[in-house]
Amino acid sequence: MIKRSARDIRRRNRFDALRCVYAAPGPVSRQEIATATGLSFATVANLTAELLDAGVLLEAGQENSGAGRPRATLAVNPQRGALVGVDISETFIHVELFDLSMTTRHELRHPLPERDSKPDEVIEHLVGLVSRLLEAARVPAHQVLGIGVSVPGQVEPEGGVSVFSPYWAWHDVPLRAMLAERLNLPLFLDNPLKAATVAEMWFGAGRGVDDLAVITLRTGVGVGIAVDGHLLRGATNSAGEWGHTCLVLDGRPCRCGSGGCVETYVGAPGIMRTLAETDPGSALLHPDDQAATIEAIARAADDGDEVALAVIAKTGRYLGAAVANLINLVNPQVLVLSDWVAAKLGERLLHVTREVAADHALAQAFRAVDLRLCALPHNPVSLGAATFALEGFLNDHEIFGSVASRRPTPA
Amino acid sequence: MIKRSARDIRRRNRFDALRCVYAAPGPVSRQEIATATGLSFATVANLTAELLDAGVLLEAGQENSGAGRPRATLAVNPQRGALVGVDISETFIHVELFDLSMTTRHELRHPLPERDSKPDEVIEHLVGLVSRLLEAARVPAHQVLGIGVSVPGQVEPEGGVSVFSPYWAWHDVPLRAMLAERLNLPLFLDNPLKAATVAEMWFGAGRGVDDLAVITLRTGVGVGIAVDGHLLRGATNSAGEWGHTCLVLDGRPCRCGSGGCVETYVGAPGIMRTLAETDPGSALLHPDDQAATIEAIARAADDGDEVALAVIAKTGRYLGAAVANLINLVNPQVLVLSDWVAAKLGERLLHVTREVAADHALAQAFRAVDLRLCALPHNPVSLGAATFALEGFLNDHEIFGSVASRRPTPA
Repeated sequence: MIKRSARDIRRRNRFDALRCVYAAPGPVSRQEIATATGLSFATVANLTAELLDAGVLLEAGQENSGAGRPRATLAVNPQRGALVGVDISETFIHVELFDLSMTTRHELRHPLPERDSKPDEVIEHLVGLVSRLLEAARVPAHQVLGIGVSVPGQVEPEGGVSVFSPYWAWHDVPLRAMLAERLNLPLFLDNPLKAATVAEMWFGAGRGVDDLAVITLRTGVGVGIAVDGHLLRGATNSAGEWGHTCLVLDGRPCRCGSGGCVETYVGAPGIMRTLAETDPGSALLHPDDQAATIEAIARAADDGDEVALAVIAKTGRYLGAAVANLINLVNPQVLVLSDWVAAKLGERLLHVTREVAADHALAQAFRAVDLRLCALPHNPVSLGAATFALEGFLNDHEIFGSVASRRPTPA
Repeated sequence: MIKRSARDIRRRNRFDALRCVYAAPGPVSRQEIATATGLSFATVANLTAELLDAGVLLEAGQENSGAGRPRATLAVNPQRGALVGVDISETFIHVELFDLSMTTRHELRHPLPERDSKPDEVIEHLVGLVSRLLEAARVPAHQVLGIGVSVPGQVEPEGGVSVFSPYWAWHDVPLRAMLAERLNLPLFLDNPLKAATVAEMWFGAGRGVDDLAVITLRTGVGVGIAVDGHLLRGATNSAGEWGHTCLVLDGRPCRCGSGGCVETYVGAPGIMRTLAETDPGSALLHPDDQAATIEAIARAADDGDEVALAVIAKTGRYLGAAVANLINLVNPQVLVLSDWVAAKLGERLLHVTREVAADHALAQAFRAVDLRLCALPHNPVSLGAATFALEGFLNDHEIFGSVASRRPTPA
């Protein structure tokens, strides 16, 4: 059973306080943090003292509170260090460097061939990209607080192992151990579903939301679920494999070995199959390039192309029914359509998805949900991967130890 | 955002300590509670002092701990009061009286006609049943600590409102207000999915399990999900409507207004439809009696009847695929098939469900789950409803106030 210790609560409160600072458009006072988080002023004073000591926050000025003496305001200290977020996808690797205010300093992208990639090849690309990234941004490695890596499929974060990646048929690949020899950085491993969700929890539509679901639409498909600020991981960190839930019994065969899975209809390869079925010789289809095909569908739909519009309508019909399943099962307050397929097909896909979901979902649960597109800039998965590294840094007992909690509360 | 106060943690620890006492085959020592819950001995001493003060626990004797002085052992005090659990189902009302050790003192059952029941009629039956129940058990009303009521469909527990019950087309029925005029008892309202799950968390397969899912198979179908000892409720307490997730796009029409829902295949009426499709004139079919039909299928299967075996195989095929969806999405450690349809079809249904789920689920998540039948005696929904009343009593601030927490820890 999970132990609920005083340390867990303090860490949780530290996250909440810091999320509040990130969320604010400018520097914030301790009073504002207390109001936004529901924590007592004494607790906030204690937490911010700890974060100031660690150099994560800095005093950014003072604000006039109307009556009484001016209040000190706080901001994240971008100079405290850098974080690297890595999105290893089925078709590309994306690396992004952030300062501690989570502003992008530099990013690089490398395509992967649309065939089986081997772990060694991927690691070779990754190490080269990270090295070029730091060089281009002129950030020495010792300033990097941590690196977060997202890989598709089932992941075992503590051991740093890719347990199963269906697209490449990877089994039990010890990525952390393999990378430790090449990158001397604290490394945090998880998958794109979890990464996209953590990005929304810290910096997007999930801030302050108790019941959140974030759908990732890319080559693979899945959902991240967060309840009361905690990611739902399940018994073996494989919760969220909504892409491999059956929507059409005996439907399209899936790379997971089952059939009729959501992913076979709304993942990029699934949408390509729908396009090929709708118009077998379509010029929109780039058989070896998922991104180019989805992009072509989006552009053609803007021009009123009937095939493109039909493909989006069919995709939305599947997606809407599958989204209704999530609404009925999870009853989220906010449900985000995230990642590059959702970004490219945008409002057009959202519109039909919402209409179909309304027909399939229970009325009360549908009324309760705010279904929307991801509004984060850049790649939510790289941002989320870097956020895992940020969380790892904030969990560092040497920096945020139990001593600080015994500090007397400032008057 | 949910506030995490010291009071919440203390209540949570109180539940954990008491669950441990219920779980034990006999009286337990404070040391045993501390070991089982992971709480410190000082915390356990504090919690048990509070529960002894409130009369919930009593000193049951002493055990010889080998070395040192004998340890006092504790047990639940059955005399502290009684709890009533009510299961309003689509086809019956079941009321059960428990003492505080959760031993059944008496129970009554009343069939409901398989047609639209009106709230007034149901309440009339319910009030009569509760009155007869207390009379038969010779328990005066003032000894009843609370009554828990389960009604099918979406429920708003705080207001005590049945928001939507698809089977009867109830909308926004203020059950608590209607019952308050007739029963002068603290009343706790929820639905069978939540009740069956809470029963497993306190008294069954969910004890000490961090990732639990409990499937309710009756007229309606759904799942209760509990993470780290907390029920997943969602934004409007309608999480768990797995019965209304789509398994067969454009499949059987559902009373919820959608189609292809899990419930239309594995709920009692869905199984009756499968039977009618398999053998249109089957003697096993009792068109107006769900329980008699499912019972007849179970008995005929025991005798090797091919139609009955085919119906169970087809039902298991749907159920297995739908269970795999839950395994992939929620990744539970324990998944219980509960309620009367699961109880009647038993091991035979479990076996085929497990085989089909193994084909559909991701291997890692399937290996992680313990899929089993409910082992609770009697009706898990009535027990769970009474458990909501127990939790309500344990949350009573007048009895379990903040003063007790400041009590000095016994040496």
